[in-house]
Amino acid sequence: MSPKITTELLKQLRQVMKSPKYVQEPVQAYIVPSGDAHQSEYIAPCDCRRAFISGFDGSAGTAIITEQHAAMWTDGRYFLQAAHQMDNNWTLMKMGLKDTPTQEDWLVSVLPEGSKVGVDPFIIPADQWKRMAKVLRSAGHDLVPIKENLIDTIWTDCPQRPCKPLITLDLSYTGVSWRDKITALRSKMTERKVLWFVVTALDEVAWLFNLRGSDVEYNPVFFAYAVIGMNTIRLFIDGDRMMDPAVREHLQLDSTLEPEFKIQVLPYGSILSELQAVGAGLLPKEKVWLSDKASYALTEAIPKAYRYLTPYTPICIAKAVKNASETEGMRRAHIKDAVALCELFNWLEKEVVPKGTVTEIIAADKAEEFRSQQKDFVELSFATISSTGPNGAIIHYKPVPETNRTLSVNEIYLLDSGAQYKDGTTDVTRTMHFGTPSAYEKECFTYVLKGHIAVSAAIFPNGTKGHLLDSFARSALWDCGLDYLHGTGHGVGSFLNVHEGPCGISYKTFADEPLEAGMIVSDEPGYYEDGSFGIRIENVVLVIPAETKYNFKNRGSLTFEPLTLVPIQTKMIDVNLLTPKECNWVNDYHQKCREVVGAELERQGRHEALQWLIRETEPLIRVQ
Amino acid sequence: MSPKITTELLKQLRQVMKSPKYVQEPVQAYIVPSGDAHQSEYIAPCDCRRAFISGFDGSAGTAIITEQHAAMWTDGRYFLQAAHQMDNNWTLMKMGLKDTPTQEDWLVSVLPEGSKVGVDPFIIPADQWKRMAKVLRSAGHDLVPIKENLIDTIWTDCPQRPCKPLITLDLSYTGVSWRDKITALRSKMTERKVLWFVVTALDEVAWLFNLRGSDVEYNPVFFAYAVIGMNTIRLFIDGDRMMDPAVREHLQLDSTLEPEFKIQVLPYGSILSELQAVGAGLLPKEKVWLSDKASYALTEAIPKAYRYLTPYTPICIAKAVKNASETEGMRRAHIKDAVALCELFNWLEKEVVPKGTVTEIIAADKAEEFRSQQKDFVELSFATISSTGPNGAIIHYKPVPETNRTLSVNEIYLLDSGAQYKDGTTDVTRTMHFGTPSAYEKECFTYVLKGHIAVSAAIFPNGTKGHLLDSFARSALWDCGLDYLHGTGHGVGSFLNVHEGPCGISYKTFADEPLEAGMIVSDEPGYYEDGSFGIRIENVVLVIPAETKYNFKNRGSLTFEPLTLVPIQTKMIDVNLLTPKECNWVNDYHQKCREVVGAELERQGRHEALQWLIRETEPLIRVQ
Repeated sequence: MSPKITTELLKQLRQVMKSPKYVQEPVQAYIVPSGDAHQSEYIAPCDCRRAFISGFDGSAGTAIITEQHAAMWTDGRYFLQAAHQMDNNWTLMKMGLKDTPTQEDWLVSVLPEGSKVGVDPFIIPADQWKRMAKVLRSAGHDLVPIKENLIDTIWTDCPQRPCKPLITLDLSYTGVSWRDKITALRSKMTERKVLWFVVTALDEVAWLFNLRGSDVEYNPVFFAYAVIGMNTIRLFIDGDRMMDPAVREHLQLDSTLEPEFKIQVLPYGSILSELQAVGAGLLPKEKVWLSDKASYALTEAIPKAYRYLTPYTPICIAKAVKNASETEGMRRAHIKDAVALCELFNWLEKEVVPKGTVTEIIAADKAEEFRSQQKDFVELSFATISSTGPNGAIIHYKPVPETNRTLSVNEIYLLDSGAQYKDGTTDVTRTMHFGTPSAYEKECFTYVLKGHIAVSAAIFPNGTKGHLLDSFARSALWDCGLDYLHGTGHGVGSFLNVHEGPCGISYKTFADEPLEAGMIVSDEPGYYEDGSFGIRIENVVLVIPAETKYNFKNRGSLTFEPLTLVPIQTKMIDVNLLTPKECNWVNDYHQKCREVVGAELERQGRHEALQWLIRETEPLIRVQ
Repeated sequence: MSPKITTELLKQLRQVMKSPKYVQEPVQAYIVPSGDAHQSEYIAPCDCRRAFISGFDGSAGTAIITEQHAAMWTDGRYFLQAAHQMDNNWTLMKMGLKDTPTQEDWLVSVLPEGSKVGVDPFIIPADQWKRMAKVLRSAGHDLVPIKENLIDTIWTDCPQRPCKPLITLDLSYTGVSWRDKITALRSKMTERKVLWFVVTALDEVAWLFNLRGSDVEYNPVFFAYAVIGMNTIRLFIDGDRMMDPAVREHLQLDSTLEPEFKIQVLPYGSILSELQAVGAGLLPKEKVWLSDKASYALTEAIPKAYRYLTPYTPICIAKAVKNASETEGMRRAHIKDAVALCELFNWLEKEVVPKGTVTEIIAADKAEEFRSQQKDFVELSFATISSTGPNGAIIHYKPVPETNRTLSVNEIYLLDSGAQYKDGTTDVTRTMHFGTPSAYEKECFTYVLKGHIAVSAAIFPNGTKGHLLDSFARSALWDCGLDYLHGTGHGVGSFLNVHEGPCGISYKTFADEPLEAGMIVSDEPGYYEDGSFGIRIENVVLVIPAETKYNFKNRGSLTFEPLTLVPIQTKMIDVNLLTPKECNWVNDYHQKCREVVGAELERQGRHEALQWLIRETEPLIRVQ
């Protein structure tokens, strides 16, 4: 993987930063955040402006270009990847390390006095704008909104914004109709005394209307906004997607409806002016509810006194707690996903060991092929991380021809992959060795497994925030002086984004919402040895009520149930490092994989994969 | 304990809230925070305004009085105590429970439109003012500073502000001279480009000048402020304390000194006007460094553009990392403290079991008596929590004649106590049974012990924040559906406040500073059964480098060393619930108690207590 040469592009950008054609006054720095106008984590090609200017295409990162410098902030998952993808024009700012300055502090340290710092007001979240503007202002600089995106002005072959057909989801998938969701939302609005609610996140629009799209790869969402009033519903969406009879029927666009459920369809681009009109028409005490992560542009459309901002919207919170239909769908999706992975691992064992012709890309493609054979498969849920040997240490690695290694009996293979099925979203990581792992590799794997089990089997009182469980995943690693530089888990959507809020298991967040039964998160501790190997064991787990002896004085107990049912390679486990309890956990888990996934393999007539599953789920025997 | 009758007082307060003599405009609510003008946790009698108005005298709580309501916010440690001490005029707001409104939200819900909310600007920290003012403003109310404290206007027999003699500490105790501390502070100021630093916390003033006082019970501090410039040192302090030749000598007040170390002594009450003068004389870009918890009054003295506010001051951070002299002092203090407690527990066993004449107060007094026999004893470090049976469930209980129970062979006894010695501060909790504990009591005690050990023996990478260790203390309790409603540990001063920042071990804080070698915290999980018993096991522990197999890629490993060396009652332990590792931890700990404290008991000729120590430190034997 050779870095992108950005000398010419940066020269062009620095020119437009001073050009009166685009900026009222020259800006001495320009910020290129990661997201789109919806603050999405995964974005459409037309929104990959940070990747365009820098070459670094990981899912998280912010670029800042000044007259002299070009700097990129990203987190531990991407340190290696960013270093590989960027040329010498760029300085990598490793977030989470003690000596790395914040973007604001760095700007203050490099800018000449009284500088202007530009940013696209649609791309920067309001909370970030506020924090940044404050620090810059107190150092004598100004953060200024630049209407025209400056990257777009130099991006001559920028792709079109996608506008693909929609999928409608019926009650058997969603459990709740969009009308009932609107009613529930309005009752939350009444509770908080707000008159309007602005839906800006793409997955929130999709969830609210029980629609899915494919405008953004891996994320079944579509470009749209919605503004919900107490008696009105406005959906801002482009293209002829609203001409599809199935969509019209689903949204009851042509039915005689109570006026409060009549959906008004407006062009995507009219959100700002419509919102400004809403803002202008407000009476004193009337409030508009927005996420504090909505774009600065939309937030500013509502005068300050009328804004009601919260870190998590009521949709985000409702969406996180899966109902019975969604949970059942997620279970089905995970069984199908396990079938595909049993097929894959069986195939890999047959191909890798004797032939040695399977590359990371071939393995990833094969995984997709097996998944696509399953019912209701839609697409992958993220770019498959298929990595062997040293590539496994690049936490969010994606194989490309330049880096593509061949799987062998001498290296650890790490596969982190998942899919979107119409009934659910999957995300699973397994780490395998096709030869004989070293004692050190087994030792590290076993610590990671102990951490995985510590979270998965944890019992905790109702109302506990997920970040409090993060150190459980690290304890066994810490005891030996090992750690990993990423959080332990993220929320997972139901046929929606594979990363979603408002809950998770990470030392990095404190403002996460408490875990409650029905929430779904990943449990994925790891260990990475730069230049050698990567290990990660990831299941998607459902928060469920637990049985405890004393039940927290009726406060209630919670624990996790693994939805992912794929064997964990026992060859990699040093059984003597497990406690009897951990050993039983592995055996019980494998027993369940064998029963549940075995039955489905049987039903699908996949006998060879079934044999593989049975072999891989043989109970561990602990020598005392 | 009968509640304080506050009907008449509240009536008087509501009158002055409307009286033009004290307020420019009537206020519809008046806030009475816990602290003093230095935001101290422990306060002098003249500052106990919240206790005066409500009757509730716990160490944390905020009262708000409106025309119709009187409400008290406090945390889990004080729910029972507050409920007991307040009459029916008061509503208890249980902080940390899901449905408890914040003070701001509650005010918004009860106040008539356009209300004024008053508060003493010297008592409210600036960060709290800001947060509160913002919420109130957005709901159409105003937070207003009331110069004269309204409680003081109705508190006819308010005691005088204390002004007691000072103690000077030489290098053998402090390790660093006050001049070197000032020099280090000034280099931090240069680093952050600030010209002035305002010392507002009492323990920071005491630490900086290597002085101690006794103006506040249990906290060896004195009422003073300091303002440090690059070439000036101003100390604001009252009384004839500066006439003491030892103090004059210590501060070199009469020596010919380099001008930058010449201390200017000014009256305590002149801080505001002096600071306003500093503020008025600043040139553009000149900054004044204050804690963001400094009072609103002092913060406002510096125009906004010139303020540099941080959550933790450089003094707070430097003070937390103990140097070799301080660490050695803390070790000595804890050995002496252990001698006193061995004497006490030996005495209790002889008195309680056959005679049954020892009350909670007698036990607390006896503990103080034994401590006071030790070298360099100054005073207690907090009000002794001596509680038996149901009183043990009141987390910060202090025995008073009305509640005073007699220790017996039928109830659990919990003693949380500590002292100030000239060489260090102690804080230790032991839970004992003088008869035969029930299986349930032993079970709960053992879970608490497992949590205590999990923290004490934890290994973690350098740079880990203490709050990440909090759940280790809870895991064993959680597994059975038990929990406790307080944090697991707090920073401990060196012959200073028993509670100090910026580190701790609590699920409630996220902005704590990372732990580093030399920091000292408490490790004190517990379990409380309302109406029955309380259990807590507390050691003060020192953060030390750990030996690990892989040492976090040279990031370094940390763990804890217990400074407290008092036996943990083995009678209360259900050995079969301990892992072999935990069992070894207890035996190793007891071995160290026996060796180190045993030698000191021997030296002091306390043979009976030595016999008790030897008996209580017999190794546990685990039946497999």
